[in-house]
Amino acid sequence: MDFVGSHILSVQQFERADIDRIFTVADMMEPFARRQRVTKVLDGAILGNMFFEPSTRTRVSFGCAFNLLGGEVRETTGIQNSALAKGESLYDTARVLSGYSDIIVMRHPESFSVAEFASASRVPVLNGGDGANEHPSQALLDLYTIRKEVKAAGKGIDNLRIAMIGDLKNGRTVHSLCKLLSLYKNLSITMVAPEELQMQEDVVEMLRTAGHHVYITDKLEESISRVDIAYSTRIQEERFASKEEADRYRGRFRLNQSIYTQYCEPNTVIMHPLPRDSRMDANELDNDLNENPNLAIFRQADNGVNVRMALFAMILDVVDQVEQYARPVNWYTKR
Amino acid sequence: MDFVGSHILSVQQFERADIDRIFTVADMMEPFARRQRVTKVLDGAILGNMFFEPSTRTRVSFGCAFNLLGGEVRETTGIQNSALAKGESLYDTARVLSGYSDIIVMRHPESFSVAEFASASRVPVLNGGDGANEHPSQALLDLYTIRKEVKAAGKGIDNLRIAMIGDLKNGRTVHSLCKLLSLYKNLSITMVAPEELQMQEDVVEMLRTAGHHVYITDKLEESISRVDIAYSTRIQEERFASKEEADRYRGRFRLNQSIYTQYCEPNTVIMHPLPRDSRMDANELDNDLNENPNLAIFRQADNGVNVRMALFAMILDVVDQVEQYARPVNWYTKR
Amino acid sequence: MDFVGSHILSVQQFERADIDRIFTVADMMEPFARRQRVTKVLDGAILGNMFFEPSTRTRVSFGCAFNLLGGEVRETTGIQNSALAKGESLYDTARVLSGYSDIIVMRHPESFSVAEFASASRVPVLNGGDGANEHPSQALLDLYTIRKEVKAAGKGIDNLRIAMIGDLKNGRTVHSLCKLLSLYKNLSITMVAPEELQMQEDVVEMLRTAGHHVYITDKLEESISRVDIAYSTRIQEERFASKEEADRYRGRFRLNQSIYTQYCEPNTVIMHPLPRDSRMDANELDNDLNENPNLAIFRQADNGVNVRMALFAMILDVVDQVEQYARPVNWYTKR
Repeated sequence: MDFVGSHILSVQQFERADIDRIFTVADMMEPFARRQRVTKVLDGAILGNMFFEPSTRTRVSFGCAFNLLGGEVRETTGIQNSALAKGESLYDTARVLSGYSDIIVMRHPESFSVAEFASASRVPVLNGGDGANEHPSQALLDLYTIRKEVKAAGKGIDNLRIAMIGDLKNGRTVHSLCKLLSLYKNLSITMVAPEELQMQEDVVEMLRTAGHHVYITDKLEESISRVDIAYSTRIQEERFASKEEADRYRGRFRLNQSIYTQYCEPNTVIMHPLPRDSRMDANELDNDLNENPNLAIFRQADNGVNVRMALFAMILDVVDQVEQYARPVNWYTKR
Repeated sequence: MDFVGSHILSVQQFERADIDRIFTVADMMEPFARRQRVTKVLDGAILGNMFFEPSTRTRVSFGCAFNLLGGEVRETTGIQNSALAKGESLYDTARVLSGYSDIIVMRHPESFSVAEFASASRVPVLNGGDGANEHPSQALLDLYTIRKEVKAAGKGIDNLRIAMIGDLKNGRTVHSLCKLLSLYKNLSITMVAPEELQMQEDVVEMLRTAGHHVYITDKLEESISRVDIAYSTRIQEERFASKEEADRYRGRFRLNQSIYTQYCEPNTVIMHPLPRDSRMDANELDNDLNENPNLAIFRQADNGVNVRMALFAMILDVVDQVEQYARPVNWYTKR
Repeated sequence: MDFVGSHILSVQQFERADIDRIFTVADMMEPFARRQRVTKVLDGAILGNMFFEPSTRTRVSFGCAFNLLGGEVRETTGIQNSALAKGESLYDTARVLSGYSDIIVMRHPESFSVAEFASASRVPVLNGGDGANEHPSQALLDLYTIRKEVKAAGKGIDNLRIAMIGDLKNGRTVHSLCKLLSLYKNLSITMVAPEELQMQEDVVEMLRTAGHHVYITDKLEESISRVDIAYSTRIQEERFASKEEADRYRGRFRLNQSIYTQYCEPNTVIMHPLPRDSRMDANELDNDLNENPNLAIFRQADNGVNVRMALFAMILDVVDQVEQYARPVNWYTKR
C-alpha cells in the first residue's frame, strides 16, 4: 500500500510487505524513541489526538511518538459531550477537527465510527481503537515485539510456536494479532482458554486457511512447554454480564516463575497487551516474573512508541528526512 | 484601538478600521493556517488555554492557532473544581494563572467573568466565551467568512443582503454578529424566526440606527430568495424550560438542496455557527447540501484559525516578524 | 545530594547545601521565568505530567516550567480510571509510563504512592503531591520566597522571626516548610492556631531540637507584631468531619490592612500557600491587602516556576547549557 496520506483503520489493510516496511522504519526510530538522539523532522506539524473514550497509555504513547518527531499535540479526552448532545454528526465533527491539525488519531467507543470519521476527514486518520472492532497500532506493536524478541535466537516470524492464553473470545488484541499472523507461514498457534472463552471459529478458520496449525485446549502447563511466545491476556470483565460471571474465569491461567521454570523452554518470551490484572484473585502474570529477562511486557509498551513514530513518519512522508533533522540528546538519559 | 498587550473581551471594542486590520492579518495567515508554510515566530511563548467550561472545537482551534505561530499551549478543561470550591476569587485565580503564560484564552460559564478575570491578569486575556454574554472570536470569524465568500462576486460587506434564520432570541453568535454588522453600511437583514424566538428589539434597533434595513418574518422560502448570505442557527435547546418546549420549534426552518435550488439565487452562501443539529427532527441544514459549493460552514470553522492567529500575532506584537521566522512545510499536506 | 537523574520525593532528602544550590539555579531562571529571555535547552525532551488527582495550578506551573526550558509536555488529569479499575499495579503503571517521557511529575491521592511509583520508574520522578504526605516543590518555593522577600532588608533565613497562622494541624505545606526550616539557625517561630488545630508535637519538637524558639498561641494580633514573615493558611475543610465543624474555626484569624497597619512592623511579609478562602465568612487575608507591597502571595506562586525550572534543569543535567541555548524574547511582554 501507499502509506503517504493514508488512513490506518484496520490491520486488514496490510500485506506482508507493508508490515516489513513499517518494522524497518520502526527499527530506524529506535535511537529517537530511546532518547539517544533527537529529531525535529515534524517541527511545526500538529497531531489532533482525539480520544472520545479515555485511555491514558495509548493516548500518551501516540502523543509522545509525535513529540519525538518534533511535532505538537492538541488533544481531547472523554466523550465530546456538548457537540454530540447537540446532534452533531461524525461527518461534521470530522470536517471541523480536520481543519485544525495535519493528522488525527481517533479513539471512539463505537465500532466502525473511526472509519466513518475518516471518510469525512481532510487529513489522514489513525484508528486508536474503535470499540470492540480494531486497534491496529496495538496489533502492529505486538507483532513487532514478537519479531524483535525472537531475533536473538536467529528466528523470524515464520515457523514460530505461539500460545495465546486467557479470554480469547473477548480480547480485541488477540483477534487483530491473528489477522496479522495470517500473513506469515507455518505457525503453530495454541489457543488456551476455558471452552466458553475460546477463540471464535472464524478466526481459527482464517489461521488454518493461511496454512497454520491451530490447537484448542484449556490446559496451561502443557501448552506453554514448547512455544517461542506465551501471550497472556486479561479476563475482559467489562464484557461479562456481571462481575460474578467474570470471577468464574479470573485466575484460571496463572503464569509465575516456578511454572515457567518447570514447563517452559529457556527463552520462551512472555507477552501481555497490558494492563495485567495484578489483584490476588487474577494475577495472570505473577510479579515474581518481573525480573525474568524474557518478560517482554514493558518492552512491548516501549515498542509501541517506535511503531507509532513509524506510522506518523510514513503517512506524513518524512521517513527520508528524519536524519537530516537529527542531533544528539543534550540532557541526562539512562536507559 | 491599539492591539498590543490588549485584552479582547467584547466585539464592542472594535471600530471598523480595527476589523479591517484584523482581517488583513488573518489573510496573511492563510498559507500558515493551510499548512503551505510554517512560522516559528512565537517559539518559546506559552498560551494558557483556560476552558472552565468544556468546548472541544473552540479550545482546539485556539490551541492550534497558537501552535501554528510556533508557541506552546498549557491548558485546562472543565470547571476548576478544587480552587473555586475552596473559596478562591477570580481575582486570585487570574493573578496566579497569569504568572504561568504569555497570554490567556478563557472560557467561563458566567457572563462577564472573563472581564473580571482580565482586570486582575498580568497578561492579555482573550474571551473564549463567557456564558450568554460574548464570544468575540466567533463573531469575527463569521464576519471574516462573509467578507471572503462574497469577494469572488466582487462584493464587500457594505450593501449585502443577509438572512438570519432560527433561534435568534437565544443565539449568542447572531447577537454578536449584529453588533459587528452595525459598523457597516446599508445592509438588508432579514430575521427569520418564530415570533417567540425573534431577535430582541434592542438589537434590531441598533441595526436600524446604523442605517440598515431590517425585516422581521417567519417565512423561510421568501426570505432566502434574494440574499447573499443565509445564516442558519440551531434551536438552543439548553435555554428552554424543557426539551418538549424546544421540540415545538425544532425543525421549523429546514434548508435542503431542493429548497435551495428552487428559491435561492445561484451563489447564495450558506453559513452556520456549528454544531448543526443533524438529527432527523431538527436537520436545519440537510446533509444533501454537503456537496453544494456555497455551503461555507466548514470554511467558516477553518477561518477561525486564521482569525485567532491574527489576534494572537497582533496582541503579542509579532505581525511584522511572521515572515522572518517562516519556511516551507516539509511534510505531506493536501488541502 | 547528586541531583542528576534523581527522584525528588520528600523535603527530607535535602541538606542545607542542596537547598542553596536549588535556589542559586532558581535565581538563574528569573529572566526566563519572567519572559525576558527564552531558552531551548530541553528542546526535544518530554515531561510526563501525570496528575492522578486534579490540580490546575500545580499542574500548569510544572508544565509551564518545562515549556520555558524548551521541552514538551504530555499530561493526564484525574484518576487513571481504566487501568487501575482493571487491577493494574503502580509498578506496571510506572514501568509503562516511564517509557514515554524523559522525566515525570506525579500527583496521586494516596500517601507514599509516588515513592512506590518512582521505585519502578525508569526515569526521574518528582513528587507533585502524594495525599497528606508531601509536596516538596511547594515547600521549596515557600522557602525560596522567604529568602527573596527578606533579602532587601539585608536578611537571610537564619535568625528570622516567622508566624504560621491558621489550620496548622491539617496544613501539609506548613509541615513540609518546618522540615526545611529545621536546616537553618536560630529561628523564632510562632504557631498561631486554635488549640485543636495546633501544630503537631513532633514538628514542634523537631524545630526545638534544631535550636529554634517555638511559641504556641491562639492570639493573632500580638503574634504578628514582631515578625519578618506572617504565613497564613486556609482551614482545610476537606479534613474535617463536617462543614459545620470546619465552620467553628473559619474566619478565626483574619488579617486585613487595618490590623496590619496597627500591629505589624513596616515590612512584614505576608504569605499564603493559596488558594486563599475569600468568602465572607473565611477571609483569611482580606482583599484590602491586595495593594500592600508586602503581600507576597502572588510572587510566591510566580516563584514556583523558577524553583520547578531549577529542579528540572538539575535533574536533567542541563544547568550549564541554559545560556548556550538562550536568546531574547521577540514578542510583547510586560511584567
